[in-house]
Amino acid sequence: MTTTPAAPSTKRGPYAKSKQRRESIVTAAHEVFAARGYRGGSLQDVADKVGMSQTSLLHYFPSKSDLLLAVLNWRDTVTGGGHPRDPEESLVDAVVRQARFNETVPGVIELYAVLCAESITDNHPGLDFFTERYERLRRSYFRAFSALADEGRLRPGVDPGQAAASLIALWDGIQTQWLMAPGDVDMAGCLRAYLELVVLPE
Amino acid sequence: MTTTPAAPSTKRGPYAKSKQRRESIVTAAHEVFAARGYRGGSLQDVADKVGMSQTSLLHYFPSKSDLLLAVLNWRDTVTGGGHPRDPEESLVDAVVRQARFNETVPGVIELYAVLCAESITDNHPGLDFFTERYERLRRSYFRAFSALADEGRLRPGVDPGQAAASLIALWDGIQTQWLMAPGDVDMAGCLRAYLELVVLPE
Repeated sequence: MTTTPAAPSTKRGPYAKSKQRRESIVTAAHEVFAARGYRGGSLQDVADKVGMSQTSLLHYFPSKSDLLLAVLNWRDTVTGGGHPRDPEESLVDAVVRQARFNETVPGVIELYAVLCAESITDNHPGLDFFTERYERLRRSYFRAFSALADEGRLRPGVDPGQAAASLIALWDGIQTQWLMAPGDVDMAGCLRAYLELVVLPE
Repeated sequence: MTTTPAAPSTKRGPYAKSKQRRESIVTAAHEVFAARGYRGGSLQDVADKVGMSQTSLLHYFPSKSDLLLAVLNWRDTVTGGGHPRDPEESLVDAVVRQARFNETVPGVIELYAVLCAESITDNHPGLDFFTERYERLRRSYFRAFSALADEGRLRPGVDPGQAAASLIALWDGIQTQWLMAPGDVDMAGCLRAYLELVVLPE
């Protein structure tokens, strides 16, 4: 809180170190959960990866589910918060740009796919995160498609709510196929083709 | 092999009982894996559910991965082998009919979603099953869309291969959203809307 320059290293030091430590734990947990799932990965695996004891790790994240939520939130900062867009950019361009970016971070895509499906299993701590995330994404794309409908740019007969759910579904599903057969599946191409069916040219 | 009616109960008995036992193990494993995933569910959980020892269970399925593959193959017999169709039925009708059927077996859909995503994780025994399944499905829908294109019934500009991958992706993704929010998402409606964009009316 103070801005005095006295002993900056002891003032900023511990905080910066703690922040760095948290980040390295989250990165390690991301790798462990992407490789083995939340249930298959253990806190010990994460502790081993960052070279600390499980007791020290629990000082930063009191439980495995706290760590999971930190990883899920971190994922959104890396991929840009779940398909957001610059208001000047067209929906098609924004989606294609994000899809192309996602191709560069397969580990993050894999983590998301694995944890999302796993979250449907009994008492999984990620379920609320994913349920809310889908609701938010559906609302966001519903607004985007409704705005296009107002401009007369949605193909007649297309329902903005259904298109919103479908675009998100297509995106998720095509990512899974791409993870299994990257050479056979064109993620960005499929998303662009769908949007070009739904949205009329300007 | 013999058709002699002598002592039918001892001839059919052990085989029928063994077959019944295998089926009850597969059904129990399906429930365990759908609830906890393959990694999270244990052979002991499955043995407990059918009321046998783990040693007896291993007599029927020598390993957990053997059991997983039995569950995955059983799933296809329940849902009809992954979106097949009567040659007389239109593609749209067949897909919508299958999607409506899937709504009646949410446990099977959940199992599929969880195991499919989990199979992307390291050394998962289900990966080949799912990779081959997607290849087979893409080929099958590619043929269906190509046949429609030959009849002039594919919307101009639609690529049959891309439409095949997209239909499967949409289907997978919408099932996940439906599992999380069944009241908010119309699976069959989204699939019908997609197909009506891609396929021109007769």
